[in-house]
Amino acid sequence: MTNNLDHVMVAISDPTRRAIIGRLARGPARISDVAAPFSMSLTGVCKHVKVLERAGLVRRTRRGRENTLELSAEPLCDVARWISRYQRFWDARLDRLERFFQKGKQEKSQ
Amino acid sequence: MTNNLDHVMVAISDPTRRAIIGRLARGPARISDVAAPFSMSLTGVCKHVKVLERAGLVRRTRRGRENTLELSAEPLCDVARWISRYQRFWDARLDRLERFFQKGKQEKSQ
Repeated sequence: MTNNLDHVMVAISDPTRRAIIGRLARGPARISDVAAPFSMSLTGVCKHVKVLERAGLVRRTRRGRENTLELSAEPLCDVARWISRYQRFWDARLDRLERFFQKGKQEKSQ
Repeated sequence: MTNNLDHVMVAISDPTRRAIIGRLARGPARISDVAAPFSMSLTGVCKHVKVLERAGLVRRTRRGRENTLELSAEPLCDVARWISRYQRFWDARLDRLERFFQKGKQEKSQ
């Protein structure tokens, strides 16, 4: 079964696609502008953009002669929700570390 | 360049691997117990476990005749940190929705 969380997770698993998300977070951009920093063909970048579109992370609109891409970050909220299930594990470790340092401080001041 | 965020992102991009993380969140388990709910060979499950180990999400210890797996969720913190950069996008949308409903309420009460 493939749900949207799968599409989103696959989309963000690639560093080029994360870089495209980072670029679009600064504002909408044409595909050619998005592609410029990458040592990759425009076709290669387009393939990555398609994966992002399928996950609902990028919207494409036609403006003039070229497509403009816009970030649609909401699906990342599902990933955040999935991760939050496990947050107690690293919180617990931070708590233990904090108690350890607190204990060390108390022993020093005694 | 491959850093650990890449390994972690790839590890959690697969639904079987996310299910293994979910199982280990309930406590350490033997590989055969982890594999039981999946219609997949033990070799197939072992491959997924190796991807999780490479990402630092699973620790393996030898207890008796079989390996025991334990969750090590801390690397997910890096993913949470990456996602938090984009949180303002869905927060902004929620704010707009909230203002819209607030406005609707005020107009109704006038």
